[in-house]
Amino acid sequence: MSAAGFVLDPRLAADTRAVASLPLCDVQLMDDARWPWLLLVPRRAGLVEIADLPADEQAQLWQEVNRAAAALRTVAPCDKLNLGALGNIVRQLHVHVIARVEGDAAWPGPVWGHGVRMARDEEGAAALIAALRHALTA
Amino acid sequence: MSAAGFVLDPRLAADTRAVASLPLCDVQLMDDARWPWLLLVPRRAGLVEIADLPADEQAQLWQEVNRAAAALRTVAPCDKLNLGALGNIVRQLHVHVIARVEGDAAWPGPVWGHGVRMARDEEGAAALIAALRHALTA
Repeated sequence: MSAAGFVLDPRLAADTRAVASLPLCDVQLMDDARWPWLLLVPRRAGLVEIADLPADEQAQLWQEVNRAAAALRTVAPCDKLNLGALGNIVRQLHVHVIARVEGDAAWPGPVWGHGVRMARDEEGAAALIAALRHALTA
Repeated sequence: MSAAGFVLDPRLAADTRAVASLPLCDVQLMDDARWPWLLLVPRRAGLVEIADLPADEQAQLWQEVNRAAAALRTVAPCDKLNLGALGNIVRQLHVHVIARVEGDAAWPGPVWGHGVRMARDEEGAAALIAALRHALTA
């Protein structure tokens, strides 16, 4: 598959900020101050299910998920990582990587659909994105 | 890593029924009639995060997740697969693969933590497990 025709879904674009572009995926920070929360979006037009990626690109996706998870853990130490690929609302394939701590806003439940998103302030978002970029390239 | 000392977490064992044993993972059916829902549990004692598996076993895990997802889709046609690895309550690594249809009990929200589990009747569970075993080995 190729990146031709790929455009980030407008709902994902509205809820996130760009962090980095890895070989396969765009890494976006969910603009929700309640949790350190990354999305990885493979730049493949029309892609919905992970199983629909060719095997080599699936391997690349998981390698990039691991890399993003390691960066997130470095910047935001946590008790548990949550990974998910749901896509019930936005079908464009996106993999969530979320740093959870005991007692956080949704603990121990899932974050998806929980309460109302709290946008980050500009300064906090910029600092977090800078730290994530540094960790992703370390 | 080896399978030495691996025992299925008793909470996972209480909520699921055995379907199959793949090279790395036990495949369990969640005993919840609301959704066709599989768990894949790598037989590795003490394993919590996917990133803590060696690379070759991570690749094996995703191959088995794909295989389970394909079997689940064959037996229970769906609008969207949901994949997740949360572990906020049970830390033993387990990957959820769930067949979602529009309008199901939690749609479009996540299934985790939604309402109360509805145990399957014995006959329905046995038929579903037989169909899943067949699809997994096809």
